[in-house]
Amino acid sequence: MISDNKSNVLAYGAKSLKGKIEELSILRRDCDTHDIEIEIDYCGICHSDIHMVNNDWGFSTYPLVPGHEIVGHVSKVGPDVTKFKVGDCVGVGCLVDSCGDCGACRDHEEPYCEKGGTWTYGSFDKKHDEITYGGYSKKIVVSENFVLKIPSNLDLGAVAPLLCAGVTTWSPLKHWNIQKNDLVGVVGLGGLGHMGVKFAKAMGAKVVVISRTLGKKEAALELGADEILISTDLEEMKKHENKFDFILNTVPHKHDVNPYLALLKRNKTMVVVGAIDFLEEIHGGILINGRKSIAGSLIGGIKETQEMLDFCGQHKITSMVEVIGPNQINEAYKRMQNSDVKYRFVIDMKK
Amino acid sequence: MISDNKSNVLAYGAKSLKGKIEELSILRRDCDTHDIEIEIDYCGICHSDIHMVNNDWGFSTYPLVPGHEIVGHVSKVGPDVTKFKVGDCVGVGCLVDSCGDCGACRDHEEPYCEKGGTWTYGSFDKKHDEITYGGYSKKIVVSENFVLKIPSNLDLGAVAPLLCAGVTTWSPLKHWNIQKNDLVGVVGLGGLGHMGVKFAKAMGAKVVVISRTLGKKEAALELGADEILISTDLEEMKKHENKFDFILNTVPHKHDVNPYLALLKRNKTMVVVGAIDFLEEIHGGILINGRKSIAGSLIGGIKETQEMLDFCGQHKITSMVEVIGPNQINEAYKRMQNSDVKYRFVIDMKK
Repeated sequence: MISDNKSNVLAYGAKSLKGKIEELSILRRDCDTHDIEIEIDYCGICHSDIHMVNNDWGFSTYPLVPGHEIVGHVSKVGPDVTKFKVGDCVGVGCLVDSCGDCGACRDHEEPYCEKGGTWTYGSFDKKHDEITYGGYSKKIVVSENFVLKIPSNLDLGAVAPLLCAGVTTWSPLKHWNIQKNDLVGVVGLGGLGHMGVKFAKAMGAKVVVISRTLGKKEAALELGADEILISTDLEEMKKHENKFDFILNTVPHKHDVNPYLALLKRNKTMVVVGAIDFLEEIHGGILINGRKSIAGSLIGGIKETQEMLDFCGQHKITSMVEVIGPNQINEAYKRMQNSDVKYRFVIDMKK
Repeated sequence: MISDNKSNVLAYGAKSLKGKIEELSILRRDCDTHDIEIEIDYCGICHSDIHMVNNDWGFSTYPLVPGHEIVGHVSKVGPDVTKFKVGDCVGVGCLVDSCGDCGACRDHEEPYCEKGGTWTYGSFDKKHDEITYGGYSKKIVVSENFVLKIPSNLDLGAVAPLLCAGVTTWSPLKHWNIQKNDLVGVVGLGGLGHMGVKFAKAMGAKVVVISRTLGKKEAALELGADEILISTDLEEMKKHENKFDFILNTVPHKHDVNPYLALLKRNKTMVVVGAIDFLEEIHGGILINGRKSIAGSLIGGIKETQEMLDFCGQHKITSMVEVIGPNQINEAYKRMQNSDVKYRFVIDMKK
């Protein structure tokens, strides 16, 4: 961890052109009129950070400072800031700006901004003519409209992943209106899936974790799931056909979704939140025979992120995390690629 | 056309084991207490008839009498029939029975009957312990609960396809709540697609036919479409991205749906009604970036079929048909396989 004498901001996890994560200091802007400067306490490590560091999606720019699960304290406010004051405990998620004017923004669905939102890192910030840098850093400056209030009763390190993994699973559960006693399936039990289980359970649903192996049974039940359904057990899958009110599919890569679609009741939906990739061929007949749907969902808007955080405060929900120091990021990336984390690494910036 | 001295029922289109459509007479039951005997005037030829005759889906049984777009007159009623009387003009669609008791039946969504509905032909009728025979026939006997009233102001031959092609496109347009001024895309302009255009237009939507070639432009506009969008014109497709409130996809075979999904607005749905087949791989990112859905839909319930027929009466909507005699069925099948019909063949049983 090094400081840069051009600014007071320190950054971790930037990728050099050699492709190796190493320490790098990044210059950020000073507070604009409506900006807030946040001293970062914790930043979660999202799987997309690894994709971005590796340029798996082809649009990474370097140097790159990952991190969009940011929790910290307000250290400075711009002159016109009204929503926050120095010392407030705050968070920043995947988005730091959007046009504010299009249909999506007016509907509080900023991630779908028609002019393209500004992502927390690796994204061109039109207003400030700069590439954004994320939360693997000591500080970050963000417009107050994209800053969230963190409930004071929660463990801050365990809150960080709520800003991405949390709202990514919260948003579809709310949008598809999950009700008490609905039967909700959660496919995949990682950073996203474990939050899906917690939220669906807290909403009163009966929750079934759908996993390839029995290995995750104990973990699923510990998180509050009512049952685990093994997707390779064809007899059990058959028994569960046409039973589910909703399926949250968090699998982050290409896979066969037909067996999960078969589990849905008539008129119900499976939502994909992880696979930014081609899905294997879907049989039209599975959709037609039951008027079933498959949909996608992308993080969540600022308003619903705040609603989720408030819900988490009321229900004492946080992510299950393993806290590491900044010098353990490379090791964490390696372990994540082997699914060796329960369920999210969070970097303690003070370590 | 021959008669069978075992019954008064004549049938066409039955497939012999040699795989050739030929004349065959089929024994049908007499009227049960709640049954209606219908003297068939017209029967539409649906593409699925060809699939069933050829056993493309692997569950055909022979002899097989196709036909589920049936229009005729009541010639006899069972003793407890209350809804119809001799002489009434009536129709029968794809279903002739369902359990009446499951969630789907209680919701008036009989095609999704959880115990499996009884299809109009080639389906095992549990109550009567027989295989059903369809509408390529002089008469058919059906429970009054599965018989529709036909508005008296419509041309009967052109009504027949409403019973399958009509309600298959009506049902998703209603279920997904198409509103005045919505922008509705219709992919494919055949038996289903042309009804989709007529219905969406009559509901007040702006309708765009999406086709591979300009060849269908005149036909599309003649049906009431406002515009034709050529799916192979990438520049035009790009201009139409994120513009559609709903897309009705009537393509009856495997194809790439990604370009159509890209046309949908945020939160909107494309419904597949034709492809009982694998769809090419869908990219999760297209669904995720815009919270878009792809769904399927299967014909429609009896209640909504009646609503559609009543709407057709009010709006003077029928199918565009080519009426043939029973001896032209084989030729019609050949022409359909070359898409050489505008838009539906209908057999005149009196010819």
